[in-house]
Amino acid sequence: MTSPIDFYFDFSSPYGYLASHRIDKIAERHGRSVTWRPYLMGVVFKINGRTPLREIPLVGDYVRRDFSRSARLHGVPFNAPSRLPISGVAASRAYYWLYDQDPQKAKALAQALYGTYFVDDKNIAEPDVVAAVAESLGIDSGAVTEALQDADVKNRLRQETDAAIARGVFGSPYVVVDDEPFWGNDRLDQVDRWLETGGW
Amino acid sequence: MTSPIDFYFDFSSPYGYLASHRIDKIAERHGRSVTWRPYLMGVVFKINGRTPLREIPLVGDYVRRDFSRSARLHGVPFNAPSRLPISGVAASRAYYWLYDQDPQKAKALAQALYGTYFVDDKNIAEPDVVAAVAESLGIDSGAVTEALQDADVKNRLRQETDAAIARGVFGSPYVVVDDEPFWGNDRLDQVDRWLETGGW
Repeated sequence: MTSPIDFYFDFSSPYGYLASHRIDKIAERHGRSVTWRPYLMGVVFKINGRTPLREIPLVGDYVRRDFSRSARLHGVPFNAPSRLPISGVAASRAYYWLYDQDPQKAKALAQALYGTYFVDDKNIAEPDVVAAVAESLGIDSGAVTEALQDADVKNRLRQETDAAIARGVFGSPYVVVDDEPFWGNDRLDQVDRWLETGGW
Repeated sequence: MTSPIDFYFDFSSPYGYLASHRIDKIAERHGRSVTWRPYLMGVVFKINGRTPLREIPLVGDYVRRDFSRSARLHGVPFNAPSRLPISGVAASRAYYWLYDQDPQKAKALAQALYGTYFVDDKNIAEPDVVAAVAESLGIDSGAVTEALQDADVKNRLRQETDAAIARGVFGSPYVVVDDEPFWGNDRLDQVDRWLETGGW
């Protein structure tokens, strides 16, 4: 029972961002690590015909209110981005490119990218923004820019997204603990309890 | 700050059923009462084009698992109904007809109807089933059957559903505390905290 927890998320997802501030602390309390797995939720939406909550009448107003309220509740810095959604392609490619060299540094990059988007309101869909964030972490920005157009890197993200969907992943955040799936930032307390008790 | 909490739900909603077991206890802890407000969520779905979660590929399998898991977590008896969804029209009409005579008894009827559907797996879309449940609570079943076809009663439910939608209600459960909206069974802990603190 010591395999890593899988944390699936889309870089454009406010609830994924909120969960990113809590998931590692929860896992650590139970002696577990977390593998961060960004993927492209838009691919799922094309498959199952869903629409992002914030684009649905009535629901949109509610979730915009809920993003901020949930952030305040958990003490997570949050500024509603002026552009939402954005493409998570560049951020996700940079993540996997770095992950294959240094998983811990890749997690730090993902955290920095999430903050750049959901706190600083900068558009992480732009390769230049991703490269600048990487540079601030001591990663060569030229290498990042090059990697974003690399066929193997592109393919890596495609495979990760396909593997996520094949596993039944459809939302963000979506956490898998020993094959038990939990969808949503509002399931993190259940994740905590599941790790504590091994199930119920 | 002592006005009742509004608890909106659809009789066909598993998460509404789960919340129905907890909402009054949460409110009582803070000296508050709860007005139960069944409405027809299908009318909202027609307006905003949503699809019930359980009918969406990938999502459906997850939520069916989550219904049972959430019920177990909170110690709520739950058997997945063989028919889902069903129409909540008969149950909701009976509720409002009784509510206008005796609000407390109407709540008892709603609780019994929810249990009949989500524990006993009987189809509460059928007027005869609704009448039999009412009879078990000492309510004249003939009067119920008649009420279900009464033009005023029909209109009452229509108005309640329209009023809910006009207020921005779109889901089940959907709880409003002093104009602050909370959507989902998984927001009840936040409802509890909001009642405790007056907000955050």
